[in-house]
Amino acid sequence: MSNCLVAQSGGPTSVINATLAGVVKANQLNPVYDIVYGGLHGVEGILQEMLVDLTHMSEMDNLILKQTPASALGSCRYKLKRANVKDFERIVEVLRKYNIETMFYIGGNDSMDTVAALSEYAEAHNITDLRFVGCPKTVDNDLMVTDHCPGFGSAAKFIANTALQTWLDVNVYTRQEVFVLETMGRDAGWLAASACLSGIVDLVVLPEIPFNKEVFLAQVKKHIDTKNKCYVVVSEGVKYPDGNYLAAGEAKNDGFGHAVLGGAGQAVRQLILDSGVASRVKVQDLSTAQRCHTTDQSLVDVEESFKLGMSAHMRSMDKSFTGNMVGVKRVSNHPYNVEYFATKASNVANHVKHFPAEWMLPDYAGVSQEALDYMRPLINGSPVIHYNEGVQAYLKPFYLKK
Amino acid sequence: MSNCLVAQSGGPTSVINATLAGVVKANQLNPVYDIVYGGLHGVEGILQEMLVDLTHMSEMDNLILKQTPASALGSCRYKLKRANVKDFERIVEVLRKYNIETMFYIGGNDSMDTVAALSEYAEAHNITDLRFVGCPKTVDNDLMVTDHCPGFGSAAKFIANTALQTWLDVNVYTRQEVFVLETMGRDAGWLAASACLSGIVDLVVLPEIPFNKEVFLAQVKKHIDTKNKCYVVVSEGVKYPDGNYLAAGEAKNDGFGHAVLGGAGQAVRQLILDSGVASRVKVQDLSTAQRCHTTDQSLVDVEESFKLGMSAHMRSMDKSFTGNMVGVKRVSNHPYNVEYFATKASNVANHVKHFPAEWMLPDYAGVSQEALDYMRPLINGSPVIHYNEGVQAYLKPFYLKK
Repeated sequence: MSNCLVAQSGGPTSVINATLAGVVKANQLNPVYDIVYGGLHGVEGILQEMLVDLTHMSEMDNLILKQTPASALGSCRYKLKRANVKDFERIVEVLRKYNIETMFYIGGNDSMDTVAALSEYAEAHNITDLRFVGCPKTVDNDLMVTDHCPGFGSAAKFIANTALQTWLDVNVYTRQEVFVLETMGRDAGWLAASACLSGIVDLVVLPEIPFNKEVFLAQVKKHIDTKNKCYVVVSEGVKYPDGNYLAAGEAKNDGFGHAVLGGAGQAVRQLILDSGVASRVKVQDLSTAQRCHTTDQSLVDVEESFKLGMSAHMRSMDKSFTGNMVGVKRVSNHPYNVEYFATKASNVANHVKHFPAEWMLPDYAGVSQEALDYMRPLINGSPVIHYNEGVQAYLKPFYLKK
Repeated sequence: MSNCLVAQSGGPTSVINATLAGVVKANQLNPVYDIVYGGLHGVEGILQEMLVDLTHMSEMDNLILKQTPASALGSCRYKLKRANVKDFERIVEVLRKYNIETMFYIGGNDSMDTVAALSEYAEAHNITDLRFVGCPKTVDNDLMVTDHCPGFGSAAKFIANTALQTWLDVNVYTRQEVFVLETMGRDAGWLAASACLSGIVDLVVLPEIPFNKEVFLAQVKKHIDTKNKCYVVVSEGVKYPDGNYLAAGEAKNDGFGHAVLGGAGQAVRQLILDSGVASRVKVQDLSTAQRCHTTDQSLVDVEESFKLGMSAHMRSMDKSFTGNMVGVKRVSNHPYNVEYFATKASNVANHVKHFPAEWMLPDYAGVSQEALDYMRPLINGSPVIHYNEGVQAYLKPFYLKK
């Protein structure tokens, strides 16, 4: 027999560990592999042989792992470059040293590129004893082919509920007030759009369309004139027609060639204040909390993430199953039902699934019923969360142990 | 028979409506009053006769009200000034017009001053048929006499859990990183201190002691040198020894003579970057969400807030019960148990209960075991939250109806 390896990469989500728990549990139910290794800090740690043994994880640890946010194995932003052959050789060397046959990689866009690159390398070098399998995760919901991405539902649930709660808060005074909620979403507007599930959003600004300042301010004015309040949601990645980010002052680089954003909410606030449309604007930037809030996970999201990990493990019994990502296919919406399927990781890597233009209402007025129907089942249900005297139980990250 | 009136004032909390629900429920269990009026937007609305009838609130509405954040009756920042006799005359006029015998006022420091001022006015003018009763609420936990304040427990639970969750998030990468969590707390450090319940906080900066930049930066450096990470919690109200706020650039005025703060987290970030101690600092400002997050309320907080409202109603049967605030007294900590008691609202008004100096560890290292023992029971338990397809159910604010 042989072993397998699971690792995580990219930005954490509140359910990325549920997929890890699914792989581990699947191997306990059907021990295809002798040892389930966890690779610490993604490919970065695998290159350094930083492995832990997850094979005999207890039932309770598996349960708590599902409610532990952020990558319990650690993450990395290290990108495997196809030109850097030494890295590929080293990974193959490490996998063989530990008798690892299958490597599961849980991540987003870049991680699916890693899966594609590794399987291409293996194929080009006639390496037939190693398999590379991708499991999607991203709060951004911007991966192609899969109906939606594990991690999105829980983030969307937090965003929609926080939108409702802060709307109730901002309404209590009679004074004129604009509230701006900033969500993540560098390239795709899914997270900002999810706020509309609350039913209270007046204006939503997505990164898919160039920002029209005049139209936007006119809409803010319309709401202020009507009810003295305006609730705005803005995605961090919104750009002006010239390609500059609203939050341009904050633009940086994270090493992947992505701009590190933040401050679109403050930029919108300043625009409104400068225009004189309103004199009081509050901003809530949901920041890191939106991708790691676990005390109110979506049950659908947790369960799908877990099953996706199981599905990946079960499919990997097929010796030809490599270079694939396991995705979620929506079979029906009423009742909501899904199937799991496989697609080439290369179909997913380096693409972005944008929020559809036809789902956006004109003049920032929100999203269509079809969009709401698509998103609503993904935030449904609440898992039982285990607490220790008011603070959620969590599994200590493997990279911090010892 | 006669009627009563309930109103809310000051900044919302996630359980201020539980106290309202308690007053309404108590009158259904024991109809001391014919009609329970709700006054919209605090004294501001009462002056304008903006009243709604809450007497026959359904059991389900009462239940949902307990999980609805922010003042369902609306709030105000209007301060009743003792010199402004016309306001007092007008309030008495409105109360008499609606045959209201008791006015319950749910609020913080300023609201307790309103209760004190109204009862003093009544006494000075030999008005013996009107009673004014205060119910405390504030996320800041800074009211005197009462052991703790309704609203603090739920905010503290959100803060402690978000601290844990963002700490797990920020740890996943191997890179050097400082995370700064900013909490509310203009004068008192209770909310910032509550983050320490998570067990992961490296440094906590409270407004009670003047900020020592050198000591703080040395501590950040110590943590960075040891583990490449540092988790900092800072209260919005932290000041330099010269009395200037860390977030001085943002200082404004809210009409009550309070500085409106925000940006202490960003200020700390800039200090760290400028010092060269670390080159990567993330900030999460919990902002409005911390006082209205209801999907993860503290059960202890919800139940105490509700019972406090009931206690106020029941005590008001005593015709001499006026000018009082009902507070919470801790009877024992193991097991946690409380009683409700009354104190003169004037004992509470215009004072601030600071986080005790003896509960702060030196060099920003956190809070003492005694402090944790005091706070921990207040965040305990999770009520069953009712959802409509992933978004929490809520009672539509009374001030938005019709």
